[in-house]
Amino acid sequence: MSDITQVKAMTFDVFGTVVDWRGTISREGRVLGEAHGIEADWDAFADAWRGGYGPSMDRVRKGELGWTKIDDLHRTILDGLIESYGLSGLDEAALVDLNRVWHRLDPWPDSVGGLRRLKSKYVIATLSNGNVSLLTHMAKHAGLPWDCILSAELARHYKPDPETYRIAAELLSEPPERVMMVAAHKGDLKAAASVGFKTGFVQRPDEHRPDRPNDLEPEDWMDVWGRDFHDLAEKVGC
Amino acid sequence: MSDITQVKAMTFDVFGTVVDWRGTISREGRVLGEAHGIEADWDAFADAWRGGYGPSMDRVRKGELGWTKIDDLHRTILDGLIESYGLSGLDEAALVDLNRVWHRLDPWPDSVGGLRRLKSKYVIATLSNGNVSLLTHMAKHAGLPWDCILSAELARHYKPDPETYRIAAELLSEPPERVMMVAAHKGDLKAAASVGFKTGFVQRPDEHRPDRPNDLEPEDWMDVWGRDFHDLAEKVGC
Repeated sequence: MSDITQVKAMTFDVFGTVVDWRGTISREGRVLGEAHGIEADWDAFADAWRGGYGPSMDRVRKGELGWTKIDDLHRTILDGLIESYGLSGLDEAALVDLNRVWHRLDPWPDSVGGLRRLKSKYVIATLSNGNVSLLTHMAKHAGLPWDCILSAELARHYKPDPETYRIAAELLSEPPERVMMVAAHKGDLKAAASVGFKTGFVQRPDEHRPDRPNDLEPEDWMDVWGRDFHDLAEKVGC
Repeated sequence: MSDITQVKAMTFDVFGTVVDWRGTISREGRVLGEAHGIEADWDAFADAWRGGYGPSMDRVRKGELGWTKIDDLHRTILDGLIESYGLSGLDEAALVDLNRVWHRLDPWPDSVGGLRRLKSKYVIATLSNGNVSLLTHMAKHAGLPWDCILSAELARHYKPDPETYRIAAELLSEPPERVMMVAAHKGDLKAAASVGFKTGFVQRPDEHRPDRPNDLEPEDWMDVWGRDFHDLAEKVGC
């Protein structure tokens, strides 16, 4: 573990790192399906919805779309899934509510307790591609004890664009080397490291479908890694 | 009271409305003075420091200064007070620490409890000219239970410029009429109302020196007013 004694703040990836998007969407889908008589593979639905996420942000990144909140990108992707998942019986209010599932994703079992421990020593902030209101509603829903909500929306650049991390450090009034990015995704950490952030990896073996798990291996370039947030807290002395 | 049933979020002025800048700075000044053998009128020092705030922001507003965080404006004002208040014996570390007093201002007695009540029904966010890191540190210090930290810094416009309120509503993903600005200062509320916000006034009779009290009178154009945050919570049904 490299020298992290100067770290004052931690910024967290959220989807997959703090909350279980796949499990929550799948569960809500099943409830919705029972209420409306829709039979669908809700795990596959969750995967397909999330699968549209990267390509949608790429459209913003390439300038095909002006700045667009994740809420609106999620809705566009959802609209594209209506036919194949048998959702055409849902009215507009039901679709609006379904799209809000991203605001009420459930945390991993260790998230709230682990974040509380980390918060005792560090400023803890989101740094997610989720928009500010999405992250704010999610924190209320899940009891996530953030000190502040930072988002790609504030930079109008999606991660892993370097502007996102730079503006977060600027808003925290810290040089990048005093901020640690925490994520279950190596690409996010590498991008943060390239602008000077410290990196904290957390293993989330259940984020994706069982036959396509996350890459969980610790790497030499990581400043710290944990099996979950409690293990991470332990390793940074909280 | 006008119809406020559509309000989903409340944004709060902070200095004077949520925290007692004058009392805190005066108390810290006395402690500092005793430690360093400085005799000064610390109430007057607090007033002078705060007195430089409006003119400093005006320099940014007029373009004489590029965008500058309140932390840096506070430091420039402080530097101008060193001689007249006998602070020249303080070294740089002590001045840096003194400037951070704005990050550890104490709340009014009703602030934390009243905000908790309001948080049960609304998204509660700061909307202050204080920078994001200042407001974040203050919340940790004082136990202020914000759902998210919004700041003039995110708009790069100081209140009462209309951009500040507009960008806050945009980040909350609400139309302005679903957001209520809460402040002890009528000018802040009028500016928020002019972009469509609802307004909540709270009386803070002890913000300023006793012979120059705040204007405490409720007005017809206010949507709601309270003697303190508990009274405000009561009146909006929390």
